[in-house]
Amino acid sequence: MTYQPSEATMAAAQRIMDRCDELAGITALSDDAGQPAGILRSYLTPEHAEHNALAAAWMTEVGLSTWQDAAGNQCARLEGSQDGLPALMLASHLDTVPDAGRYDGILGVLLAIEVARRVKERVQQTGEQLPFALEVAAYADEEGTRFGTTLLGSWAMAGKWQQAWWDQTDADGVTLREAFTRFGLDPERITEAARKPEDLVGYLEAHIEQGPYLEVDGRPLGVVTSIAGARRFLISVIGEARHAGGTPYERRRDALIGASQAVLDIERIARDQGAIATVGQLEAQPGAVNVVPGRADFSLDLRAEQDAVRDGAWDTIRAAVEEFCAGRGLQVEIEEIHSAPTVCCDDTLRQAVVAGVGTTGDTDPMHLYSRAGHDAMAMAAVTDFAMLFTRCEDGISHHPAENVILEDVAYALDAFEAAVWTVAESHQEKKPAHTADAGSL
Amino acid sequence: MTYQPSEATMAAAQRIMDRCDELAGITALSDDAGQPAGILRSYLTPEHAEHNALAAAWMTEVGLSTWQDAAGNQCARLEGSQDGLPALMLASHLDTVPDAGRYDGILGVLLAIEVARRVKERVQQTGEQLPFALEVAAYADEEGTRFGTTLLGSWAMAGKWQQAWWDQTDADGVTLREAFTRFGLDPERITEAARKPEDLVGYLEAHIEQGPYLEVDGRPLGVVTSIAGARRFLISVIGEARHAGGTPYERRRDALIGASQAVLDIERIARDQGAIATVGQLEAQPGAVNVVPGRADFSLDLRAEQDAVRDGAWDTIRAAVEEFCAGRGLQVEIEEIHSAPTVCCDDTLRQAVVAGVGTTGDTDPMHLYSRAGHDAMAMAAVTDFAMLFTRCEDGISHHPAENVILEDVAYALDAFEAAVWTVAESHQEKKPAHTADAGSL
Repeated sequence: MTYQPSEATMAAAQRIMDRCDELAGITALSDDAGQPAGILRSYLTPEHAEHNALAAAWMTEVGLSTWQDAAGNQCARLEGSQDGLPALMLASHLDTVPDAGRYDGILGVLLAIEVARRVKERVQQTGEQLPFALEVAAYADEEGTRFGTTLLGSWAMAGKWQQAWWDQTDADGVTLREAFTRFGLDPERITEAARKPEDLVGYLEAHIEQGPYLEVDGRPLGVVTSIAGARRFLISVIGEARHAGGTPYERRRDALIGASQAVLDIERIARDQGAIATVGQLEAQPGAVNVVPGRADFSLDLRAEQDAVRDGAWDTIRAAVEEFCAGRGLQVEIEEIHSAPTVCCDDTLRQAVVAGVGTTGDTDPMHLYSRAGHDAMAMAAVTDFAMLFTRCEDGISHHPAENVILEDVAYALDAFEAAVWTVAESHQEKKPAHTADAGSL
Repeated sequence: MTYQPSEATMAAAQRIMDRCDELAGITALSDDAGQPAGILRSYLTPEHAEHNALAAAWMTEVGLSTWQDAAGNQCARLEGSQDGLPALMLASHLDTVPDAGRYDGILGVLLAIEVARRVKERVQQTGEQLPFALEVAAYADEEGTRFGTTLLGSWAMAGKWQQAWWDQTDADGVTLREAFTRFGLDPERITEAARKPEDLVGYLEAHIEQGPYLEVDGRPLGVVTSIAGARRFLISVIGEARHAGGTPYERRRDALIGASQAVLDIERIARDQGAIATVGQLEAQPGAVNVVPGRADFSLDLRAEQDAVRDGAWDTIRAAVEEFCAGRGLQVEIEEIHSAPTVCCDDTLRQAVVAGVGTTGDTDPMHLYSRAGHDAMAMAAVTDFAMLFTRCEDGISHHPAENVILEDVAYALDAFEAAVWTVAESHQEKKPAHTADAGSL
């Protein structure tokens, strides 16, 4: 590609990179000398307050009006051609996993702020007006690091907060309700964070890919088609614990044999059917060197671009595991511990992202689905969405080695801004705002 | 078989069963109400002192001279045709694993005491004399429950005590040396427990099979050919921990895939080659539901009738594991944590056991090797040995459900006594006593 970002874009990209570094200095982790040692920012902590204050300053500097919403998300708004119009929201998150990288979530927030800066400048310089307001949101909990439930910030904004969450506790036994109060938020007012469908034009999120496909294909940017919803299971294979020496093969009901065959079957079936499956936990019981395992427990995380593919793979996996184990005299117990539907990007918004990427020279961009979850999954409950992916090094994420390059950030900034203007162009003939079941839990 | 034990034999067998029940009441495990709750007797504990006292009383009642040796083993002796002759030793152990059965070890000790009673009676009644002394030993540590090292009692008697053992600690941090002193034993005198080859004619041990072969074949008794020595390994498969969603199959180096294939390969290879292998421990790291395992550690316990078969199976297993893992970009690290050679029963003593079993009607008895370890493995360092196996229910051992039936104990008693007389008959032309490397460590 022969496209070259302008000097102004490169300068803005450099500002984004510098701010990613600045945010990396806000962390709960420190070494013996009190110096930062790895990145951790979690919900309703001093680091949360600190990153909100920094984001608010940057939003204000751009000329946006700012507020912290009832869930602790840092928000900002630029009015459109008239005050009070429905908003196109650009958002991502500022919280992190433990020992995180510098870009997951953060890059999307900083790109959104820079897009808002450039939109405001263009309006001032050209007199062009956006037919909607532009909002920026920096969610305070996407990773679920502190309370275990992910997307707390965006679920609150989507009006999907669940009362049961209030009693969840962190590692110190502090409930989410107590943490709210200590942070200066009022649990009684959580519903004020919820946005109505009619107040939103749509939702755009930029994010690092967290996978290797763009890098392999040599492209800085990609267009997301959908966000895969995972299903997660705890599977137990139950046999009989017996003396390792004294029990011949024909008398054994070795639970670990069943679990090991399951691990291999799961990989084979998922690959065959275009799903992606991970057994991340496995433990044999009772776990003595000289005892045939009587039980083996393992986890399964299963994803695919379409729920039907994922669910079809699960049906095949389940049948294979149960058949093999039955042949070995082993019982199988299955508990589904998590299930999220795949959410699809809106066609019109996705085409706007395609057009945005096209302005950077890649007119036939790679479309790919997101294997990882994002705030957009929650916001899909209240408005249409699309996503822009930026290449990251070796697909590494949730790790200090997470990396993006300056030029790719410049490309992303140009594309993301262009996508906003494309949405503006198509907004005149746009269908009425998304009116899905935003009110019910 | 039409053989019927005499009323006297049945009465003696009943006494053995009653005494197994009596010993089961000596346990360190109790419920909230202070009642016995499962069997546990371990080395140098109050239960050890109690079972020694009970065994000594039973030995004395039979008319044997008794002593506790320098390692805490309870011993007894019946002189032969003249005082001070080398001894044929009948022995097993009185210690247990936690939540043990009533017969593992115990049955052999009680059979030995009853055989001594009957030999003494026969000498008194018929004037026949044994051309050797008869000794009974009740070892105080075979299972290694308290200090982790097995066969402490019999290794002491075999003169193979290792100085490094003194610093081993129990779960409360008490060293073996301290435990010796507290029990009233003198660590400095441990070598006094060692028996010289020239003082022993041989060693016979009766034991429950701890496996199902006799039951499957419908036989009360069996003749041991050898005691399989286990090799034990800790095997680590090392890949790379990655995000479950974002990492496609071609980028994964999933350590658990390598370990799971290894578990299945190990079973297949061991079965093919006539070995018996157990993977009793397996754990995936870091062990998160949404992270591809970067490491999987598992144990391998490998046994066979002959060391060459076991070692050949290991070579095949190692090659298979390393080849599969190399193909997946996985490293393999192997640590051998235990290795014991297989020890073979002496032909002459084994033929005496065959003859003993023959007197109960089974003149072509089943020969089988012991998959489990026994005190005889240690005593093999200082004298020849053979073993008699008694059928146990469903092959279950090291478990409260461990069971034998009265009739089988009667058969075992007749056979064990007959074996002693057969050794006496063959003793005249017997080769000079075993003179293996008993003195060196």
